[in-house]
Amino acid sequence: MLNKAFAKTLREVRAKRGLSQEALSFQTDLHRTYISQLERGLKSPSLETLNQLCKALGISKSAFLKKVELEEKHHATS
Amino acid sequence: MLNKAFAKTLREVRAKRGLSQEALSFQTDLHRTYISQLERGLKSPSLETLNQLCKALGISKSAFLKKVELEEKHHATS
Repeated sequence: MLNKAFAKTLREVRAKRGLSQEALSFQTDLHRTYISQLERGLKSPSLETLNQLCKALGISKSAFLKKVELEEKHHATS
Repeated sequence: MLNKAFAKTLREVRAKRGLSQEALSFQTDLHRTYISQLERGLKSPSLETLNQLCKALGISKSAFLKKVELEEKHHATS
């Protein structure tokens, strides 16, 4: 499922950058609660939110979505 | 600007597929008016909408966003 794949990718990329949800919240101006909801697959982001997150995480939107697609594929076959 | 780059990419990919806005509307269950607004940069899509559009257009989300990024770059330097 897209939300879940997005959630897992966001958690992983954020952790790899050594950023807390608080730090990412500060850098994106998105509420920490909202980031937490995104990371649990409870909310679906807009393209604009994806853009803000990717900028703060130093990853291109296309590279981020490539990771999301790998997660989706993983779940489709497992 | 992201909305404009997305709009241009959507118009171009749809045209390349030889699909009308009506046909894309039918295949995605998105309203034709909404697709028209997306293609003029008046609306910003959700990740879920991007997903539906890409499925109907037969392109991966990451490949679509790669094109969007090229548009953004083009506008940033022109």
